[in-house]
Amino acid sequence: MSAFQVINKEVDGFARRGRITTAHGIIETPCFMPVGTKATVKGLTPKQLEEEVGAQIVLGNTYHLFLRPGHELIKKLGGLHKFMGWSRPILTDSGGFQVFSLSSLRRIEEGGVTFRSPIDGSTHHLTPESSISIQEDLGADIIMAFDECTPYPATHKEALDSLELTARWAARSLNARQRSDNLLFGIIQGSTYPELRRLSLEKTVAVGFDGYALGGLSVGEGQTSMYDVVNEFGSQLPEAAPRYLMGVGTPEDLLVAVAAGLDMFDCVMPTRNARNGMYFTSYGPLSIKQARFREDPGPIDARCNCYTCRNFSRAYLRHLFMAKEILSSVLATIHNLHFYNKLMAGMRDALVGGEFQRFKSSFLADYKSQE
Amino acid sequence: MSAFQVINKEVDGFARRGRITTAHGIIETPCFMPVGTKATVKGLTPKQLEEEVGAQIVLGNTYHLFLRPGHELIKKLGGLHKFMGWSRPILTDSGGFQVFSLSSLRRIEEGGVTFRSPIDGSTHHLTPESSISIQEDLGADIIMAFDECTPYPATHKEALDSLELTARWAARSLNARQRSDNLLFGIIQGSTYPELRRLSLEKTVAVGFDGYALGGLSVGEGQTSMYDVVNEFGSQLPEAAPRYLMGVGTPEDLLVAVAAGLDMFDCVMPTRNARNGMYFTSYGPLSIKQARFREDPGPIDARCNCYTCRNFSRAYLRHLFMAKEILSSVLATIHNLHFYNKLMAGMRDALVGGEFQRFKSSFLADYKSQE
Repeated sequence: MSAFQVINKEVDGFARRGRITTAHGIIETPCFMPVGTKATVKGLTPKQLEEEVGAQIVLGNTYHLFLRPGHELIKKLGGLHKFMGWSRPILTDSGGFQVFSLSSLRRIEEGGVTFRSPIDGSTHHLTPESSISIQEDLGADIIMAFDECTPYPATHKEALDSLELTARWAARSLNARQRSDNLLFGIIQGSTYPELRRLSLEKTVAVGFDGYALGGLSVGEGQTSMYDVVNEFGSQLPEAAPRYLMGVGTPEDLLVAVAAGLDMFDCVMPTRNARNGMYFTSYGPLSIKQARFREDPGPIDARCNCYTCRNFSRAYLRHLFMAKEILSSVLATIHNLHFYNKLMAGMRDALVGGEFQRFKSSFLADYKSQE
Repeated sequence: MSAFQVINKEVDGFARRGRITTAHGIIETPCFMPVGTKATVKGLTPKQLEEEVGAQIVLGNTYHLFLRPGHELIKKLGGLHKFMGWSRPILTDSGGFQVFSLSSLRRIEEGGVTFRSPIDGSTHHLTPESSISIQEDLGADIIMAFDECTPYPATHKEALDSLELTARWAARSLNARQRSDNLLFGIIQGSTYPELRRLSLEKTVAVGFDGYALGGLSVGEGQTSMYDVVNEFGSQLPEAAPRYLMGVGTPEDLLVAVAAGLDMFDCVMPTRNARNGMYFTSYGPLSIKQARFREDPGPIDARCNCYTCRNFSRAYLRHLFMAKEILSSVLATIHNLHFYNKLMAGMRDALVGGEFQRFKSSFLADYKSQE
C-alpha cells in the first residue's frame, strides 16, 4: 500500500485531503509542520505541542543538528524522536538551504558543499550521500534529497545549472538511502522560470521519490512570483504523492497553495513572530506591544479556543512581552501554532464537506478585515 | 476558626505539619512558594505550575507589579489571580526589600520610602499605607506588612533604629488594611543581634498579625549567622500562626528551618539557577553544561519523576542549554520547582509519620554525596 492516499479532492479545483502513513503515525493533509530547528520547537515542551497545539509532525534542521550536538550523538541516544521526546512523525530537511543561507566560505562542487560552522569556525563538507546518511542517523520519518537551493535572483543559465546539479544530487540521494522505514522526497528547483521549473520537475520525477517538494521559494522573489510558480506547478507534481511547499508561509499563502494542490508546509513565521510579539488572529496579524492593548481584557482572538486565548487577556500578554518574560514567547507560540493548525484542520474539514472554496473566501475576508 | 491549624508536631523538636486556609484554597505546610515576580513564574504556564510542579501558592513582587504594569491596571482587570491565570493562593511581599535592593535614589523617612524606577527613572513613594493598598488591589491571599529590610552589615544602633521603624510601620500597615479576605503577616527584623531580634519579635507580636515572618536574612550574613537566628527564633514566633522565613533558601536551609519550627519559604534559587543550567538533585546540585553530560542518556535525577526527568536525557538537556534554547529554562524550572515541592511534601509526610529527623538525615546524607 502506498504511504499516501488522497481521500477527497475538489471537483473543480486541485485542493485535496490526504493521509500520509509513516513509521511514527499518520499525518492528515493538508498539514503545517512547526519548525523545531535544534531538536526543539522553541519554547514548547513536546507535551504542549501535542496537547495545546495538536501538531501532527515537526521539522528538524539537519544543518543545525549536524553542527550541534551532532548526528552521531543523537543516533547513539536512540534517534531524534527519543532525543527530543517527540513520538509523532518528524521531517528533516537536507541541510542544503541552511548551508547556503547561514554559512560562510561555501564552496559548491559536483561532489557537494564545503562550508564553515558559524558556531566554532570549523570546516565541514555535506554531500548528497552524507546528508541522507545524517538524516537516517537522526531517524526522521520523512527525509529530503540534498539540493542546491537556487539563490534569488538567478540568471536563466545559473538557474539551469543549479537545477541540473540538484537533479544529479537527487539521483545520488536516492542511491544513498539505506533505511526502508522513511519516505524520501525530491525537491524541484528552477527559480521563477516556468520552463526550468518544468525541466526540474521532469528530472526529479524521473529519479522517482515518495514525495515531491517545491524548493527555492520564499527566498526574495516576492508573493506574485511565488504564487505564479505555486499555481502553475502545484497540481503538476505527481498526484499520487505528497506535495510539499518548503518554507511557506502566511495564512493566505497556505490557502493559495492548498488550492493549487499542495499538501505540506513548514515555516518559521508562526514561531519566530510569536517571539517578537506578533499574534495571528482570525482578523489578521496583531502586534501585542501596541499601547491600545494595555488595558484590553479580551483574548487575542475571540474565535480562538487555544490555551492562551482561554486563559489570558491581551493586557496580560502585552505585559509579558513588554517585561521580556519567557512566558510571552511560550504563550504566543502556543497561540500561533494552534492558529496554523486550526487553519489546516479547517481546510481539511472543508475538503471533506466539498466546501473548500467557500472556506477559503470566508477565512480571507475575515483575515483581511483587521478587526 | 483560625486560618492556621497545626496538624502534627514533632515530639522532641519544633517541626510541624500545618494547614493555612485562604480565600483561594488551602496551603499544606511546610511549603515552598515559587517566585512569580512579574505576574509569572519565569517560563512556566500556570498549567505547568499546577500539573508538573504541584505548586500550592506563588509569590508576586509588589515592587515590580507596582512599577509595571501597575496595580491599578491589575485591579481593573480583576486582580492578580485573574490577570496571571492562577487560581490558587498568592502571597505578595510589601515591596520594601526590592526598594532597598533594586532602586536608586532611596530616601527613607518616617512616612515611607522615595525611590526611582529602574524602568523609566520616574520617582515613586511607598508607605505602609500605600503598600497595603497596592497589595489589596492586587488581591493576594497573604500580604506582608511594609518593613525596612535592615541592610547587612548594620551596627547595633542602625539595626535598632531600623527595627523600631519597622515596628511603627507594622502598626500602620495593620491600620491600613481594608479587606477581610486576606491574611496579613508582620516581619521581624533585628539583623544578627539576638536581643534585637527578640525586641523586634515582641514589638511585632504586640501589633498582632495573622502570621509572622523572619526578614532581613539571606542578605549577606552567611549561613552560620542565618542558622543562628533561625534556630533561636524559629520556634519563638507565635505557635498558633504560620511562620515564614523570607528569601530562603537551599534544600539544606529548608530542612534546618523546618526543624527550627518554620512553615513557609520562598526563594529565587530553584527558578533562577534553572535558567543558568543548574539542576537540584537528590545527590546535590548539578551543572548541566559540564562536558561529562554530553552523551549521558540518563535523567537528571534517577529518583525524580518530574516531567523533565521522565522524558529527557542529560545529553538533551545539556544540548538545549548549550544552544541557549528557551526550552532549557522551561524544563530546568519544572524540575527544580518539582524537586523543591517534593522535598516539602517529603517533610510533610515525615511529620505525619513522626519521622522528620530520620527524613532530614537521610535526605542530607544523599544530598551531600555528590553522586
